[in-house]
Parts: sequence; structure tokens; C-alpha cells
Amino acid sequence: MNLILLFESDFIAGNLVRLSDRRMRHIMEVHRASVGDELCVGLEGGDIGSGVVTILSSDALEMEVQFSKKPPPKLPLTLVLAMPRPKVFRRVLYTASALGVGKIFLINSRRVEKSFWKSPVLDPTIIRRQLILGLEQSRDTIMPEVLIRPLFKPFVEDDMPQIMKNTLPLVAHPAAQEILPRNVGHQVTLAVGPEGGFIPYEIDMFRSLGFRVVGAGERILPVEAAVPFLISRLL
Amino acid sequence: MNLILLFESDFIAGNLVRLSDRRMRHIMEVHRASVGDELCVGLEGGDIGSGVVTILSSDALEMEVQFSKKPPPKLPLTLVLAMPRPKVFRRVLYTASALGVGKIFLINSRRVEKSFWKSPVLDPTIIRRQLILGLEQSRDTIMPEVLIRPLFKPFVEDDMPQIMKNTLPLVAHPAAQEILPRNVGHQVTLAVGPEGGFIPYEIDMFRSLGFRVVGAGERILPVEAAVPFLISRLL
Repeated sequence: MNLILLFESDFIAGNLVRLSDRRMRHIMEVHRASVGDELCVGLEGGDIGSGVVTILSSDALEMEVQFSKKPPPKLPLTLVLAMPRPKVFRRVLYTASALGVGKIFLINSRRVEKSFWKSPVLDPTIIRRQLILGLEQSRDTIMPEVLIRPLFKPFVEDDMPQIMKNTLPLVAHPAAQEILPRNVGHQVTLAVGPEGGFIPYEIDMFRSLGFRVVGAGERILPVEAAVPFLISRLL
Repeated sequence: MNLILLFESDFIAGNLVRLSDRRMRHIMEVHRASVGDELCVGLEGGDIGSGVVTILSSDALEMEVQFSKKPPPKLPLTLVLAMPRPKVFRRVLYTASALGVGKIFLINSRRVEKSFWKSPVLDPTIIRRQLILGLEQSRDTIMPEVLIRPLFKPFVEDDMPQIMKNTLPLVAHPAAQEILPRNVGHQVTLAVGPEGGFIPYEIDMFRSLGFRVVGAGERILPVEAAVPFLISRLL
């Protein structure tokens, strides 16, 4: 937790916040903070600053906070992700949030197991928790948007033209002939398939909309590594 | 499992292999293979090819295999990694193996919790299992080397000069002034610190050996995302 993410509901008066949840335990057990210590804080949706611990007891911690600068900018990228295996999904949410992805569409694909869509990891509370962990790690305050679109064809036909407008649309595909471009200097829409990749019909649909089908070499990377790998090379 | 990794001990005669472990279960339950199906296989330390299922019963699977091409080359990079939290370490091993890292030195740092060095994840069997999972994912056959060096100073002073010879030596550090270079076209030695980063004394030691201290922007990435992110940008 490189930043303590604060919410309006944490404020008890003026610039005074009171925490009694896992953030308090983390500050006590990991930061091992004492009264007078200064910590990096940020207000959800707002600025970053510092908080000085004023009270520390076994059931609550209070801080006087001041905000002084903007959070880092989000990446110029929209991620369109075929729903991964639930355990992997949690990690990808965390990673994508830490990387600074601002918008994630979670989509279906033929090779997504149907059971994944019934997983509790799609609960908004769990999604939000993973996103918060990513913001705390990377010192950001702006919650990414996660939009769930469990029907492939309507999503690609009806929503995608608007999403990809004025962006460089790329679909990452292990069998691609074209090599992933580097450092594109442009807003990107990046689609990443499921384990085993999008099926040819799906790739054709992306292509018909103007997507370029790109690969990152001979190796098939697991999605949790592919997301940072692709983003880093592209941007 | 995009490649079934085979070992000499799997061969029962000529080009005939017999599997009865988790690979068999994976082939049956995930690939849902039948007799006559062809699967991508690779021989540990050797070539890649295909295997045709000849016998499939509840307790064993046999394949006739043929090898036809070399595995993908390893990355021109040695990873020097401060021992992460055990759960993260397992994932980083898997990811690094899938990415094609050929050699990993696991080192100490002031901010590595002492308990991490007593974790069962350092058991060679567990390390090897994670590396195999990475090879199976990325269709590689060459086991990465993982070398454990739990004393920081002797490692940096005695081993590092030889390791970094003829490479571009970089240490990733959140507070770095210099931005990570792109696409360096050169063998790299990349050091990645623990949560919270290397301490100034450690950074100074790297610097005195000729390491450049580089960062990837304002965000502090979790190590499991930092490894693919840094590698992708550098290489």
C-alpha cells in the first residue's frame, strides 16, 4: 500500500480522517506508523497528498490530511478483455488498475468457459476491491471503469465502433503475422483473447471493423503477463 | 498447457511416451483429446514437435512423438530479483519462465522480510514446478536457471561483476530520475527490488558497479506486473 486511498465517508471533520478497517491495520502492521508519522494519501477521484497520524489506538487511527497534487494520468488505452479464469481475473484487475488502465470491457468469446460468468469475482464489490488494491499500489486515485459485456456479437457490432473511434484498434493474437508495434503515440483499443485465443470467426469480426491482428512473438503468454507486456510495448 | 513437456523418463520405447500424471489428466480434461488427436509436445532441454495419442485409458495415455523444431530463443536478459513475498514469487517464476527469462538470481535486500527465506516456495521441487508451468504455457523446453543468493553484499561484490560483464546493467527503482530505455538491442542485466524498493545503500552499491538506475514512470508497479512490463519495454 504505497498510498492510503481515502473516501469522503472517512472524513470526520475538515481535513481529519478516521480509519478503523484494513487500512488502519495495514498502517499499524506493515508501515508500523506512530503518532506524528506522515503517510502518502489520496482522495478517491481526487488529489494526492500526505496524512499525519494524530491518534492511534487499537480500534481507530486518525490523520490530518492535505492534498497537493494530481494523480498520475491514465494510460491512453481501453482494454477489451475476454473473461479469464476467475482467479486470473482478480489478478488482472489488480494489475490493470496499477498499470493505469482507465477502462476495461470484459467480454465473452467462444473459448471462455460459461461457468466463468457465474463466478463471484464478477460481484461489483469484489471488482472494486481489486481495483482499489491496484490504485493503492501505484499511487492513483481514479477508479477504473469495468464494463461487463457477456454477449460477444452485440458488443462487437453495436458498442465497438464507438469505443474504437479515433483509436488504433489492435487485437493480440498468438498466431498473428504482424508484430506488435512499439511506442505508438496514439490512443489504443487493445483486445486480448481468452486462453487458446479468439476463434477465427471472432478474429474476422475484429478485422472487419478495422482491427489489426498483432502478436508479441513465438511465446504464448499467460493473460496476467500479457496485459503488462503488451501495454508496455505499445505505449 | 500449450505444449506437453516431456522428459526422458516418459519414454517407454523409441518415440513412444506414456503419461499417467497431471499431464494425462490435463490432456483428457482440458484438451479433451481422443485417440488419433495430435498435440504440441516438447522434450525438456530439446526440440518441439507433435504427439499423436495412440492409447487412452483411465490410468495412462500413450503418444507417438516426433520432434521437428527448436524452442524459441531465451531473452537476452538476466533477472536479478529481490526475493518477493512467497505467493508473489510463485507467480513471478511462472511469468518469468513463460516470458523466456533464462537465468534468475534471487537475492536479498534490506526490505525483504527474513521469513520469506524460510518459505517452502524455495524448495527446488516447487521452483521447478512453477518453471515447468511457464514452459508449458509459452511452448518452451529449456528450463530457466534459478540461483538463490541470500546474502546481498557478497553477491553484489563477488558475483555481480561477472554476471553483468558485457551487458547493459540496469536497476529498476521507483524513485529513479532516468526513464527506462526502450528496445535496447543488447544483453541486459536487470535488477528488480522488493516492495518498497532497494534502500539507498543498495542502490549506491549497484551504481558503483556501473548500474544505471531507471524508472518506468510515476506508478509503482507490483513485481508480478513490473517484470513483464520492464522486460517488454527494454527488449
